Amino acid sequence: MKARVTVMLKNGVLDPQGEAVRHALGALGFDGVEGVRQGKVIELDLVQGTSQATVKEMCDKLLANAVIESYTIEMA
Amino acid sequence: MKARVTVMLKNGVLDPQGEAVRHALGALGFDGVEGVRQGKVIELDLVQGTSQATVKEMCDKLLANAVIESYTIEMA
Repeated sequence: MKARVTVMLKNGVLDPQGEAVRHALGALGFDGVEGVRQGKVIELDLVQGTSQATVKEMCDKLLANAVIESYTIEMA
Repeated sequence: MKARVTVMLKNGVLDPQGEAVRHALGALGFDGVEGVRQGKVIELDLVQGTSQATVKEMCDKLLANAVIESYTIEMA
């Protein structure tokens, strides 16, 4: 089974990476970009029967920094 | 309007970052992790009326490296 974890910086936390992308898109002539936030996505290949609670524990312990990041989990 | 671009390394391309996460999860006692791939997600805040074709152009020109990465676009 698979799980997909998406980790984004919380609103209000400065995102210099996203800001750099926004600036670069503007320099390439893409005018309609008002904001960019960049995060990471982690695709986990798990043994059958792994619970969402286990994935949540992975997020809390390793995958996300709860102080500045929020995450969502999709099981598939 | 918003668009979300997810960029992942293509299958077969070595993903040392994902491999490091897999190893770290194992060290933390999570046994059921068979594989990890890490990618990035870019959330774009766009002016109303921006087409998916424009976002695709952004991906091809800047956001993804088509040689080693694949991407998906979700418009919202």
